Amino acid sequence: MFHSLFVIALLFSLSNAAVQDFCVADLKGPQGPAGYACKSAVTADDFVYSGLSGAGNITSLIKAAVTPAFVEQYPGVNGLGLSAARLDLLPGGVIPLHTHPGASELLIVTQGIIQAGFISSANAVFVKTLKKGDLMIFPQGLLHFQINAGGVTAVGYPVFSSPSPGLQITDFALFANDLSTDLVSKTTFLDPALVKKFKAILGGSG
Amino acid sequence: MFHSLFVIALLFSLSNAAVQDFCVADLKGPQGPAGYACKSAVTADDFVYSGLSGAGNITSLIKAAVTPAFVEQYPGVNGLGLSAARLDLLPGGVIPLHTHPGASELLIVTQGIIQAGFISSANAVFVKTLKKGDLMIFPQGLLHFQINAGGVTAVGYPVFSSPSPGLQITDFALFANDLSTDLVSKTTFLDPALVKKFKAILGGSG
Amino acid sequence: MFHSLFVIALLFSLSNAAVQDFCVADLKGPQGPAGYACKSAVTADDFVYSGLSGAGNITSLIKAAVTPAFVEQYPGVNGLGLSAARLDLLPGGVIPLHTHPGASELLIVTQGIIQAGFISSANAVFVKTLKKGDLMIFPQGLLHFQINAGGVTAVGYPVFSSPSPGLQITDFALFANDLSTDLVSKTTFLDPALVKKFKAILGGSG
Amino acid sequence: MFHSLFVIALLFSLSNAAVQDFCVADLKGPQGPAGYACKSAVTADDFVYSGLSGAGNITSLIKAAVTPAFVEQYPGVNGLGLSAARLDLLPGGVIPLHTHPGASELLIVTQGIIQAGFISSANAVFVKTLKKGDLMIFPQGLLHFQINAGGVTAVGYPVFSSPSPGLQITDFALFANDLSTDLVSKTTFLDPALVKKFKAILGGSG
Amino acid sequence: MFHSLFVIALLFSLSNAAVQDFCVADLKGPQGPAGYACKSAVTADDFVYSGLSGAGNITSLIKAAVTPAFVEQYPGVNGLGLSAARLDLLPGGVIPLHTHPGASELLIVTQGIIQAGFISSANAVFVKTLKKGDLMIFPQGLLHFQINAGGVTAVGYPVFSSPSPGLQITDFALFANDLSTDLVSKTTFLDPALVKKFKAILGGSG
Amino acid sequence: MFHSLFVIALLFSLSNAAVQDFCVADLKGPQGPAGYACKSAVTADDFVYSGLSGAGNITSLIKAAVTPAFVEQYPGVNGLGLSAARLDLLPGGVIPLHTHPGASELLIVTQGIIQAGFISSANAVFVKTLKKGDLMIFPQGLLHFQINAGGVTAVGYPVFSSPSPGLQITDFALFANDLSTDLVSKTTFLDPALVKKFKAILGGSG
Repeated sequence: MFHSLFVIALLFSLSNAAVQDFCVADLKGPQGPAGYACKSAVTADDFVYSGLSGAGNITSLIKAAVTPAFVEQYPGVNGLGLSAARLDLLPGGVIPLHTHPGASELLIVTQGIIQAGFISSANAVFVKTLKKGDLMIFPQGLLHFQINAGGVTAVGYPVFSSPSPGLQITDFALFANDLSTDLVSKTTFLDPALVKKFKAILGGSG
Repeated sequence: MFHSLFVIALLFSLSNAAVQDFCVADLKGPQGPAGYACKSAVTADDFVYSGLSGAGNITSLIKAAVTPAFVEQYPGVNGLGLSAARLDLLPGGVIPLHTHPGASELLIVTQGIIQAGFISSANAVFVKTLKKGDLMIFPQGLLHFQINAGGVTAVGYPVFSSPSPGLQITDFALFANDLSTDLVSKTTFLDPALVKKFKAILGGSG
Repeated sequence: MFHSLFVIALLFSLSNAAVQDFCVADLKGPQGPAGYACKSAVTADDFVYSGLSGAGNITSLIKAAVTPAFVEQYPGVNGLGLSAARLDLLPGGVIPLHTHPGASELLIVTQGIIQAGFISSANAVFVKTLKKGDLMIFPQGLLHFQINAGGVTAVGYPVFSSPSPGLQITDFALFANDLSTDLVSKTTFLDPALVKKFKAILGGSG
Repeated sequence: MFHSLFVIALLFSLSNAAVQDFCVADLKGPQGPAGYACKSAVTADDFVYSGLSGAGNITSLIKAAVTPAFVEQYPGVNGLGLSAARLDLLPGGVIPLHTHPGASELLIVTQGIIQAGFISSANAVFVKTLKKGDLMIFPQGLLHFQINAGGVTAVGYPVFSSPSPGLQITDFALFANDLSTDLVSKTTFLDPALVKKFKAILGGSG
Repeated sequence: MFHSLFVIALLFSLSNAAVQDFCVADLKGPQGPAGYACKSAVTADDFVYSGLSGAGNITSLIKAAVTPAFVEQYPGVNGLGLSAARLDLLPGGVIPLHTHPGASELLIVTQGIIQAGFISSANAVFVKTLKKGDLMIFPQGLLHFQINAGGVTAVGYPVFSSPSPGLQITDFALFANDLSTDLVSKTTFLDPALVKKFKAILGGSG
Repeated sequence: MFHSLFVIALLFSLSNAAVQDFCVADLKGPQGPAGYACKSAVTADDFVYSGLSGAGNITSLIKAAVTPAFVEQYPGVNGLGLSAARLDLLPGGVIPLHTHPGASELLIVTQGIIQAGFISSANAVFVKTLKKGDLMIFPQGLLHFQINAGGVTAVGYPVFSSPSPGLQITDFALFANDLSTDLVSKTTFLDPALVKKFKAILGGSG
């Protein structure tokens, strides 16, 4: 009864062979404003990422780790408007003040207690203490932070509205590069001596 | 009186030589999330497609043909947010339940009578019988179908809000590939024996 | 066997009741940059438009009619990135030089022979003669035209990549409003007397 | 030393008072194609959602629950290109074959083992077994499913590239509404008797 | 010869009367994610803004003024993807480190000498000294600054890729609101005493 | 105290090395619908453009110059949704009627007096006389013009909502290419003799 459907099935398979449902990144191919070039042969492995399954490398001072699953780590998200990361915060751990220049963030807390907040363009402050299973949304490009507010390790998965959200930690932008002490001081009103002290610690020069 | 305009005409021609009004697909060039790379030399022929001027190859069981003019067939639509197809439905012909994962569809009926419908996320059903010259819009990604509801061959031109709308016919997605009988059965509640029967007919395995 | 599914079906129906698969325009509601406000109760009729099923009102001089099915006429396309129109061209009929400021156009010829063309930003000219069933794409915002190039009435359905493509006919923009003869002349280099003559014919003033 | 900055701080606060960093949905206000109207007074509570912190209501047959945090449940995500949900799958639990018409999905597995898969437009099948901490991306609009593949309850958080992703479960679209048995049968090739049986179970009519 | 065109001119005027070429903001109407509702009656005045024609109010300490022409000041830009501002920098003047969360910026220097720079997500620093007529682009959401680098007043016009770009000055976000000294200190590593001192100067509390 | 931050700084620098904050055009690389491929090594120079700092080459008849800073001239704007140009208008100077097919325009007048106007799809005319410091917005794709309305040279900087706005001057589109006199005449109702005269002046053929 269905024997002729076989023909149309083949026809569709052929005509759709190149249809662009997805575009797994070829990280070595040309990159454009919309993302990376598409990899030509894909398998189910291209759509799965296991790099967030374990705790990230904790940095002792901030007692925290940020592990990205952006398009560079997870090429399957290329062009699909999503990416993710994992936060691990030991007791006392802090993700310092930062922005994602190209994306909004939705944080899912999966362990522990996290105090999180953001500051709007109108300079309003929005701070909440989140427990396991809570979600918090951080609108695009605004300064925000996360702090472990409990006695045990906290874990959260931030997801982003872009495969390439970017991450700009304010302290690193100010003190961990070669932006001159004079320019940092003039544009933040921090004392030059303090700027130099932070630069020494964070590896900045100038 | 206008002789100096000649100079500015030349100036503009030069400065605009590379301006990107359009981007005819180079199907052999790199493809990215926004579409194909642009062909370097184009003529009027690149903007015209004649592949929908005749009836498609009718498949006897469904008594119908779907002929796509997506970017792979019609490279001139690359990046322009539009594509098309042609439906031919013999009396009794059916375009089985399907979706276009990346586009809305606007159907123009040009011959005969077509009964068409779609189902919303809220599970509401919208069905209408269309005659020559009628338009019907199918919102993005929703299940829909078209059936010849008259005694003569019906023809329609669906147009899409993307050069690469995709086409996923539910029966083919379930029964015309190697998705295992066990997974099809578990995720649709269809009896495994029925799944195997359909797979045999449609060329699926597993 | 499935009796518990009934519960989940109800749950989903409720939770999805307000899901926005579509947004049929409430033409009396507030309009924003993305389109009209959504109508609250919709039926299948909202998604169908029959206003293009017959020939438009032919204007004797241009021997042609343009009948739009934009969002104002066809509220179902609101927010879905598509709209349509119908062209009727008697022998000798002309759709004068025009642009659609906010959309690309894909023309489907359904009867007769149409000579169509557009001019790019780089001032290249792309002209083709189209027969029944041919498609031609006109990239966004560029000047283009359609002319009946056969001995019988020609009909075509242009579709657009926006529910609100706009239509700016160059002759009307110059001569059918109150833009002063002085400004028209200065910005087109047409002789003021000629501008006044055209204004008289097309109903312009100033 | 900074006393005059106080003035500029005030100036900026005033000028930015209405700046649109975010647009928390006023669910009772007008809705348009881009989302809901913005709520006028917001607090930190508007950006946090706790409705996914506990297990959803398990339906016994599918041994699973889907709990959405779309814009209707979580108004803070309005206009920000993101939303989420929670999946609870008892041993043997299944999220039946479905699509999200308007969004890609990124699934984060937080407990147990989930076998998940999707089918592309070209009819290729991508299936993987995911463990705690794994991510899998499902490109926009494609049929996909999730199954508990372990001996314990599995939990996952799907996130979406839209505040209003929609959810269309194939079985419900076919059998849980008033789409006539005749149309379901004609467009799926399922036997009318089988369609009627499923309709009876899932609460459909027609 | 053209007398019948008058008819079609009227037809088009009617059919296009509601076409949405633009959407001047009705600042008192509902606001959605895409911008403000459209004002119903517009004149040429709605498209012109004179508020940047004179120098802004200089704040003595930073010796500078920022005067916005965002959608709240200039409703005509609503929905059109553009806005502007004016910078006035006395000798020694500084626009402190800041971001625009929702837009890229293109600065046009019209008087004097401005040293400007931005810092990328990868922590690279891009600093240049600009003279009259120079343009500099600051990619979306990244920290940047402008300093008068000459002996005379400098003036520049930044334009933005959004009608509502937002403006977040780092010093104000940290010290001019009620974000607690404890949270500022923990998330920036600045000494609490220093935070309190800055808060006192900039009007912050907590 | 901060010594461990050094580690995380390095980690972030590495993980973010390829993050796409920007995509300076490699004009020799492949071009797609979203713009040019990204240049691999960039410096501050890539973000600055000095080509608009001096007056453009005045064409004697129109007594004006248009100097573009589109992506082809200014590769740093690629993918960032902005570009610019410079207008120089001697007394009596005119920028003839034209459109930008792919962008809205915001004009900043920096010297002299400019009378500017545009015509909407509904054929309404919006004309204003602008003085130094005034802004005027021209919605996407609509016909508009600028005229020196003062006794001294006027200068303005138009900025655009696209890196590749295009520029289509009506007179050049009609008379400065090989579009046949017959087609120009038929689609504009201008007398063939007049068309030929303009073609001779502007360098057109046919």
